[in-house]
Amino acid sequence: MIRSFAADGLKRFASIRCFSSTPDFTKNNYNVQRGGYQSLEEDHIKYFQTLLGENRLVMDLSDLEQYNVDWFKHYRGNSKLVLKPKTTEEVSKILSYCNKNKLAVCPQGGNTGVVGGQVPVFDEIIISMALMNQIESVDEHLGVLVCQSGCILENLDNELEKKGFMMPLDLGAKGSCHIGGNVSTNAGGLRLLRYGNMHGNVLGLEAVKANGEIIDLMSSLKKDNTGFHLKHLFIGSEGTLGVVTKVAIQCAVRPKSINLAFLGLQSFPKVLKTFMQAKQDLGEILSAMEVMDSATMDFVKDKLKVESPIGEYPFYLVIETSGSNDEHDADKLHKFLETTLIKHFALNGTVATEPSKVKEMWQIRERIPDSFVKDDYVFLYDVTLPIPDYFTLVDDVRDHLGSKGKVFGFGHLGDGNLHIQVAVDKYTHEIKDFIEDYMYSRVVELKGSISAEHGIGFAKIKYLEKIKDKNALIFMRQMKRLMDPNGILNPYKLIFEQH
Amino acid sequence: MIRSFAADGLKRFASIRCFSSTPDFTKNNYNVQRGGYQSLEEDHIKYFQTLLGENRLVMDLSDLEQYNVDWFKHYRGNSKLVLKPKTTEEVSKILSYCNKNKLAVCPQGGNTGVVGGQVPVFDEIIISMALMNQIESVDEHLGVLVCQSGCILENLDNELEKKGFMMPLDLGAKGSCHIGGNVSTNAGGLRLLRYGNMHGNVLGLEAVKANGEIIDLMSSLKKDNTGFHLKHLFIGSEGTLGVVTKVAIQCAVRPKSINLAFLGLQSFPKVLKTFMQAKQDLGEILSAMEVMDSATMDFVKDKLKVESPIGEYPFYLVIETSGSNDEHDADKLHKFLETTLIKHFALNGTVATEPSKVKEMWQIRERIPDSFVKDDYVFLYDVTLPIPDYFTLVDDVRDHLGSKGKVFGFGHLGDGNLHIQVAVDKYTHEIKDFIEDYMYSRVVELKGSISAEHGIGFAKIKYLEKIKDKNALIFMRQMKRLMDPNGILNPYKLIFEQH
Repeated sequence: MIRSFAADGLKRFASIRCFSSTPDFTKNNYNVQRGGYQSLEEDHIKYFQTLLGENRLVMDLSDLEQYNVDWFKHYRGNSKLVLKPKTTEEVSKILSYCNKNKLAVCPQGGNTGVVGGQVPVFDEIIISMALMNQIESVDEHLGVLVCQSGCILENLDNELEKKGFMMPLDLGAKGSCHIGGNVSTNAGGLRLLRYGNMHGNVLGLEAVKANGEIIDLMSSLKKDNTGFHLKHLFIGSEGTLGVVTKVAIQCAVRPKSINLAFLGLQSFPKVLKTFMQAKQDLGEILSAMEVMDSATMDFVKDKLKVESPIGEYPFYLVIETSGSNDEHDADKLHKFLETTLIKHFALNGTVATEPSKVKEMWQIRERIPDSFVKDDYVFLYDVTLPIPDYFTLVDDVRDHLGSKGKVFGFGHLGDGNLHIQVAVDKYTHEIKDFIEDYMYSRVVELKGSISAEHGIGFAKIKYLEKIKDKNALIFMRQMKRLMDPNGILNPYKLIFEQH
Repeated sequence: MIRSFAADGLKRFASIRCFSSTPDFTKNNYNVQRGGYQSLEEDHIKYFQTLLGENRLVMDLSDLEQYNVDWFKHYRGNSKLVLKPKTTEEVSKILSYCNKNKLAVCPQGGNTGVVGGQVPVFDEIIISMALMNQIESVDEHLGVLVCQSGCILENLDNELEKKGFMMPLDLGAKGSCHIGGNVSTNAGGLRLLRYGNMHGNVLGLEAVKANGEIIDLMSSLKKDNTGFHLKHLFIGSEGTLGVVTKVAIQCAVRPKSINLAFLGLQSFPKVLKTFMQAKQDLGEILSAMEVMDSATMDFVKDKLKVESPIGEYPFYLVIETSGSNDEHDADKLHKFLETTLIKHFALNGTVATEPSKVKEMWQIRERIPDSFVKDDYVFLYDVTLPIPDYFTLVDDVRDHLGSKGKVFGFGHLGDGNLHIQVAVDKYTHEIKDFIEDYMYSRVVELKGSISAEHGIGFAKIKYLEKIKDKNALIFMRQMKRLMDPNGILNPYKLIFEQH
């Protein structure tokens, strides 16, 4: 009865959150200068054809489009070649050759990233990991999965289900995203609250450096303290330090019971009190803690005719539990709800324990993004804030925008991860800068993070310099130079120096 | 009613597991050549006196002893100077000066490591972090602790208890070890099974590089994907890449209920079946899964007159649960025990739910190390093995040794972490090599790790080259040269090149 839900409904956005069905080239839309890389020549293509065979090169212009344009259709690269290796050795040979010939590359997983990290900016050669999709093993004792990095998250989860385990992360894009992309972006999602991030769950990995060197950091053991823990350099560095080819993941025991509470609350301070009560009462079975404001709920109601199951309130909480015992979990959840009502933390609440009812209530949270389909243009933001200031940012952005746009606040409260949606009549560079320059500086003032789970990619690169410690930035640049001296790996993203 | 137990009773070993009360200098005992560092001169001392004041330098020979000799009294350095900074800026000035003057340093936390990583080998200046013991904040919403790295683990845990949280790790040495040492060695312990390792729990840190540069990687947010995740370079690198000065730790909600099951089993395959059953039935409340063999229990019984609560069996399991609801937890544990008996996985078992009874039963596991006090010399090993081969190593080492020693197997089965104790009549270098050369190569054959949680330090440095992937080793050396070009940080440990 385990259900999977689309974290933020990313899939549904695909066709609508766009400049047009085919965006203009990123290089034209933004002020970017091409690095001093070689351009693709006939000899290069011949080398790759000999290495991979003709079928594993994509060069047809219409076929290239799906690799050049990101899921949200915000960015469009101009690559003339996609390579589809099947083995680590092939990745190694590709990179070794590109490094020698100073050809820039863009590693690509399921192309579901939302900050443009996975699509080229100019004519970088795309290395698609789609054919590196073999599962090597699932350890039945500790739930350790070993697989190639091109495996699709949902496929892995289905495979694990057979042995009573599940992936420790769940994303809206699970049907398309690759585990290698999840690792390379340190993907978050709903389960992070319970199961932690990729740094805790990746036991080992294999990666290929820019020069083609294969580095075997493939421990699949839970405890292994032998030398520097270098695998973490590849987790969250968005393909700029190496290409992840294989991973070992610590998976979780699959829960037998999932329940849901839906609560209406008067104010954000009351939301916080309820949050604390849930941590105490639900403890080890707490698996999601989502919040939304009335603006969001009203919008959902208006556009999708979805009703709140408990009437109208300034704030709503969706709290999920996952455990090994139906009865115990339901008992805990009922007691928690009773307490929050008696203490006047919540004004109203309901609990769903039946799978169909659980699913129905989750829909309200899940369909938030759907409701924005009807609007003209919607910006999606992903930030972390200290819990007390979680909604301060929403209020502040609302004040800043005034009548220029509508602001909706919701997100993974349990991790301090806020998603702000801003709906405007029409996309312009000016309105984008007007929102972002203010929002990101306010996030910094509030001691938050300008990227909670989506990464920096191409979208936030100009803000990175402003928020990072000077020595940390120097250190990042040193690392990049050490690991990729020619700068061929995913240029123009995260941190970039002209070559 | 939360109890803390000494993971492997390290404290009790302190005075007995030794060559003598004062071991010979490491430089004499082992074949080590001093690096080309400067020796301490009057001018250097004057600089440090001006920086720290005279009281925060230790130079008296008898006072120096406790810093030069490790807890187990296996290693003895010859440092003439201990420095005790109170601030990050002081650490920065110390390192900057030492780097310019090519003076080697040995960072030291609570001096509780068991592989000699924390004591000097020659005359390295010891930087004691003991006075950097300030707690900065405890976030009451998410349980994030921010503190200086010289805070003692137990003190932090006591402070967290006031707000309903606890440290995500527990070690025998908790009364002495520093959180900075825990982070620098990626310390494990009993709670790892439930709460994960330091890579998952350290949200941010501040470190000082060899050249004195302070790097602020101090996010205290649960989700922060902004740039390379460089903090992990300092986690588990044993002070060879930088000195950790401040940390932000994700802490756990303190459980309200702790229960214990003690089981007797026929064979290791039955231990494995029980292990799997526990994962299913106890799920989210499972917090420890310890195993011991009959040799260990017999020895405990013989030496300490401690009785098994359930009679004699070839194997024993100690299974702990921690949760938020007494009744639910006891119910789960009883049902689990019933199932294991009905299915004939376990031959006998008992459950303790009363705190005093829980404590009494834990004593049997806890006092294993005590029992070895009566023996002449005992080697303690710490390895990880794939679960099916967990006890294969114990049998193999027993065969290899024959009448040369007695072998006892026990450990943290839930993480695949085995501790083997080998008792011999008398310590000699020959018997040490005879055991270790065999054991570590067998661990590699079985695809295990030669260090589960203790690290490499000085003790295992000669084995690191044999087990690591060639490119991973090259990468480690590149990293060391990048971050500490003069090699002043904790030389002769983990990975070392002559300077």
